[in-house]
Amino acid sequence: MTYKVAIAGATGYAGGEILRLLLNHPAYASGDLEIGALTGHSNAGQSVAELMPHLPQLADRTIVDTTVENLAGHDVVFLGLPHGHSGPIAKALGEDVVVIDCAADFRLKDAQEWEDFYGSEHAGTWPYGIPELPGHREQLQGSKRVAVPGCFPTTMTLGALPAVAGKLIEPDLTIIAVTGVSGAGKKASVPLLGAETMGSVKAYSPGGTHRHTPEVIQNLNPLAEAPVNVSFTPVLAPMPRGILATITAPLKEGITQEEVTKVFTEFYADEPFCHVLPVGQQPQTQNVVGTNMCHIQAHVDERARKLVITSALDNLTKGTGGAAVQCMNLSLGFAETAGLPLAAVAP
Amino acid sequence: MTYKVAIAGATGYAGGEILRLLLNHPAYASGDLEIGALTGHSNAGQSVAELMPHLPQLADRTIVDTTVENLAGHDVVFLGLPHGHSGPIAKALGEDVVVIDCAADFRLKDAQEWEDFYGSEHAGTWPYGIPELPGHREQLQGSKRVAVPGCFPTTMTLGALPAVAGKLIEPDLTIIAVTGVSGAGKKASVPLLGAETMGSVKAYSPGGTHRHTPEVIQNLNPLAEAPVNVSFTPVLAPMPRGILATITAPLKEGITQEEVTKVFTEFYADEPFCHVLPVGQQPQTQNVVGTNMCHIQAHVDERARKLVITSALDNLTKGTGGAAVQCMNLSLGFAETAGLPLAAVAP
Amino acid sequence: MTYKVAIAGATGYAGGEILRLLLNHPAYASGDLEIGALTGHSNAGQSVAELMPHLPQLADRTIVDTTVENLAGHDVVFLGLPHGHSGPIAKALGEDVVVIDCAADFRLKDAQEWEDFYGSEHAGTWPYGIPELPGHREQLQGSKRVAVPGCFPTTMTLGALPAVAGKLIEPDLTIIAVTGVSGAGKKASVPLLGAETMGSVKAYSPGGTHRHTPEVIQNLNPLAEAPVNVSFTPVLAPMPRGILATITAPLKEGITQEEVTKVFTEFYADEPFCHVLPVGQQPQTQNVVGTNMCHIQAHVDERARKLVITSALDNLTKGTGGAAVQCMNLSLGFAETAGLPLAAVAP
Amino acid sequence: MTYKVAIAGATGYAGGEILRLLLNHPAYASGDLEIGALTGHSNAGQSVAELMPHLPQLADRTIVDTTVENLAGHDVVFLGLPHGHSGPIAKALGEDVVVIDCAADFRLKDAQEWEDFYGSEHAGTWPYGIPELPGHREQLQGSKRVAVPGCFPTTMTLGALPAVAGKLIEPDLTIIAVTGVSGAGKKASVPLLGAETMGSVKAYSPGGTHRHTPEVIQNLNPLAEAPVNVSFTPVLAPMPRGILATITAPLKEGITQEEVTKVFTEFYADEPFCHVLPVGQQPQTQNVVGTNMCHIQAHVDERARKLVITSALDNLTKGTGGAAVQCMNLSLGFAETAGLPLAAVAP
Repeated sequence: MTYKVAIAGATGYAGGEILRLLLNHPAYASGDLEIGALTGHSNAGQSVAELMPHLPQLADRTIVDTTVENLAGHDVVFLGLPHGHSGPIAKALGEDVVVIDCAADFRLKDAQEWEDFYGSEHAGTWPYGIPELPGHREQLQGSKRVAVPGCFPTTMTLGALPAVAGKLIEPDLTIIAVTGVSGAGKKASVPLLGAETMGSVKAYSPGGTHRHTPEVIQNLNPLAEAPVNVSFTPVLAPMPRGILATITAPLKEGITQEEVTKVFTEFYADEPFCHVLPVGQQPQTQNVVGTNMCHIQAHVDERARKLVITSALDNLTKGTGGAAVQCMNLSLGFAETAGLPLAAVAP
Repeated sequence: MTYKVAIAGATGYAGGEILRLLLNHPAYASGDLEIGALTGHSNAGQSVAELMPHLPQLADRTIVDTTVENLAGHDVVFLGLPHGHSGPIAKALGEDVVVIDCAADFRLKDAQEWEDFYGSEHAGTWPYGIPELPGHREQLQGSKRVAVPGCFPTTMTLGALPAVAGKLIEPDLTIIAVTGVSGAGKKASVPLLGAETMGSVKAYSPGGTHRHTPEVIQNLNPLAEAPVNVSFTPVLAPMPRGILATITAPLKEGITQEEVTKVFTEFYADEPFCHVLPVGQQPQTQNVVGTNMCHIQAHVDERARKLVITSALDNLTKGTGGAAVQCMNLSLGFAETAGLPLAAVAP
Repeated sequence: MTYKVAIAGATGYAGGEILRLLLNHPAYASGDLEIGALTGHSNAGQSVAELMPHLPQLADRTIVDTTVENLAGHDVVFLGLPHGHSGPIAKALGEDVVVIDCAADFRLKDAQEWEDFYGSEHAGTWPYGIPELPGHREQLQGSKRVAVPGCFPTTMTLGALPAVAGKLIEPDLTIIAVTGVSGAGKKASVPLLGAETMGSVKAYSPGGTHRHTPEVIQNLNPLAEAPVNVSFTPVLAPMPRGILATITAPLKEGITQEEVTKVFTEFYADEPFCHVLPVGQQPQTQNVVGTNMCHIQAHVDERARKLVITSALDNLTKGTGGAAVQCMNLSLGFAETAGLPLAAVAP
Repeated sequence: MTYKVAIAGATGYAGGEILRLLLNHPAYASGDLEIGALTGHSNAGQSVAELMPHLPQLADRTIVDTTVENLAGHDVVFLGLPHGHSGPIAKALGEDVVVIDCAADFRLKDAQEWEDFYGSEHAGTWPYGIPELPGHREQLQGSKRVAVPGCFPTTMTLGALPAVAGKLIEPDLTIIAVTGVSGAGKKASVPLLGAETMGSVKAYSPGGTHRHTPEVIQNLNPLAEAPVNVSFTPVLAPMPRGILATITAPLKEGITQEEVTKVFTEFYADEPFCHVLPVGQQPQTQNVVGTNMCHIQAHVDERARKLVITSALDNLTKGTGGAAVQCMNLSLGFAETAGLPLAAVAP
């Protein structure tokens, strides 16, 4: 069987990354996967050559309007649209189509949290695309609906997970996550100009105001002894891609570096995309660029009695497009790692 | 009177920054300040034209060896040498010469802390060069010895100071400070190559292992109700200059954003180099590059009951060379702000 | 006398740079120069704190509308407006006001060239703000009107000038100028986003299509033996500031490196802002950032019989705002170098 | 059959890139290709985890000494060693082993040119690894020896080739090639520190002094009407990877943009890795990062009567490691494009 894949919002950064990965997917090479409609909004009618010159194989393709008509007739539809558009499209496409949504619409379970942070009516919840979360892989296998997580929540969740589940820390997390500028998307904006962002870092949406805060809490709460408290502040750094989260929390009485290392290493021993680094080595975003990997380290601050976890991934790959393809693999029954690079484009 | 100034270790980044500031100092323009010997070690005999082409006024100067002979006969000597060299030189120069030391040797009061973090014998303590710390300005006025602080401790201290002194927080600080690459100095090294640092961030010396940890604790302890606990992790970011510290701590019962803003604003109302930003605006390192300013914001994370303070400065100016010149101004009786830019080279 | 200065279009990059320089100008410190109205268009009513946080001294100022009323009553008016607005404003302000225009309107002498490259009616010509061009300094002294040059033409002109005037080359110039992203201004645009420009270079407006081409030809023609031919292509590089031009031209028969070095060195011997580097050393934009300097080198390619000239400056300082202040100094009778840094913010 | 591959100098940037590509090669996935010895010099005994954390699949491997013993017993040996080492090793390995040399040793045919530019005895010439050069693909098929070209010569050759072969220009080329910092290799050096290279560009090895000059001339001469004259100046830009060459040459009488576009498009119609962009679109290095592609444009400068060609590639992929794997594919009889990405990691 050949699966026909469409991408709505193909010209954004998430769409472009999904395309890059699909073009290198073994199912694409073998003809089991075919790239169908590529849709956009303001740039419908323009060519891929013009809009995404990094995809020369598709140079002759034309972007079509994001309509149900254009998306119908595909087996898999990736949605890379602004929040609020996914629900109606998914409904119209029907239950037999695999819909993988890169927006936030179906991530949060708590309707009040949704309304507080997004200011609109709650759309519901779909299987959540972090297969590494206990119990989630099973839900994603064969699922026709997937809510791809936010890039920050994936970084923070994968970092904090072993410590929370392993009861190494009090669940009171201070998280600073440094992100590259592509996280803000491909829309014209003065504060995101090269001249405003190069050679400079700044914090934004400090402490609790970023929409990804309730998402990470939702991910960690089921595994924690007590409700998880998170103070999360993102920092914008002058690099195109990458997120590095530092997660600091009070270390439980008596926990040692040795135990921490053991818990982290064993927790991810069978996960192909989570790589706990050797003791003493810190994650660097360069080493995950273009890959579906999350590199992780956990360091015991003896003096301050804190655990300092660091986790790094590529916000466009494991943070969005790679996670989307990983979930597609699980949905269609491909090997979970198919088409997902482990080795980074470094330096 | 004309003050004659020498710089030992002139070709490093701290030395170059001190020279840039002195060349624009009104006392240099008026002839009250003269630039004398510029010393170096491996590059003695080379010209400034070759080693510091950003200082065309001094192009014809030659770097001489770092010896007491070459440094003698000056009224002010700035030391930009590796740790361990400052004591003997200062002693040999005598008590009448103003010695402003950019190394760590005379910063820490606790001999044990020094030995734990630096691994050598404690040299003693000199007046510490953060005039904004209560009581310090008075010690620095007319002082013949100054220990210029580390760049991280200045950023962290100026950020945390109003909250600690104002009793807004429990003194349990989690600090992540993102730094530009010049902080590591001008020495050949593979991990600091452009190819290894551009487009990438990484944490290093995580939680408690960085030498600047005891220094910030020493600064804050006298103003705190209880011993200050600090978990500090630096992050290396792809920019030449700048530090952005995020300081998170448990907010005391009942403290509001309004009170926080009031305390911070009033605390620094008379300080020319500390600028508390309007509510809702976050510090960005670009806005302090080349200046002696520290931009500060304090945000109440209501949900997590944390205070999130952000502070930004230029590690080579307010973080090192600017602080050194500010202290020279206090020592010699110049206006404290003389020759120290407030307006940044942005973008 | 106190000169009162207004800036129209103050919130753009040119306006911000003029302000940075004026705030450090000795005439500002002495009270001989006062900063008056700061005007803008879409952001009138907003504060400087919000729009230009790198200028803390002016934080409390409010941007007013760009109208003749708001600009009237000043002795000097800098114009940082889009092309086409300068003429009417200058006329309305009257002949006694010094008007220094950072737009292109009054740069080109040839009406046809203007129409070909800018597509509107030719406004006329004002004294052209490169004092280093033979005869120009005299025209600028006391002038009430100044056309500040484009940033590329200044870089290219200062580099090529000694070779053209000194008859070292055939006047057939191939110029590639690598520029930082601030050259494109502070307006929202997808191709100028940080994510599109970091870690990447691209050429644009290739060979002859850039509007600065006729301007450099106009500058060089009067000094050349024959009409100057220029093929100019700019390249956008991932840095906030700086231009590096490489100018290649056929070397005349018999000309040696020794003669070239002699001609260049002597040509700029008395120019405070043109610095010919020692033989073997190449200009680097970092070494001119924030300064009004142009660093220049000229290398004889023996094998290909070409002269390869390289020149570097800061597009916002010597390329725009610094040149504007230099011309203000000449107009008002201040020292030409007043308030204009020679030492760069490096690294 | 399973081909066993060794890499000498595996921990350098070329070695790391070859490994990244091999790990994603379909022959590696199918077991037809196996990664054997990885050798180094100063870092022998260290783990890949420590030295190349971007290759987690090989984390447990240890780097061994670069000796003939360690390299023996492989079917393919890639050499990423400093100039001068390849000859003796190749000889010792014997004629049955495929040796693919990333150093310069066997590139130049003219012994005098070798001695002039490299200062040692000429080692000879091997089949030269630009399959896109007329006649070269045939020589590389099945060859047991390959000299991988320099990254600049590949960029310049692929750009200039259609114009020289198509007789569109006089063969008098002015080339400015902007390069990322990884081109200088992974060795400690002050001028290549992040602080020295970020936010800054500089020219180096100007006009005719760079060793890659004779290599591009050698490539183009056989196709030109007259001896090719090249003035080549590289410029270092703040990005990890990528080269953008601008090649300017006198346009022949009567040649139009239409003809130029036709010649370029047809010349590369069947080449999988050479992509001539639509008229009006310029190459950007971001769009080739991580790929084996060369993006090319050719623009007629009507006014100056010049042809301005721009070509972009990733110096570590098509410029080195990708070319090496492409040549391995030709040598072993794999599909030429196997394992070589066309779609870039952008933004």
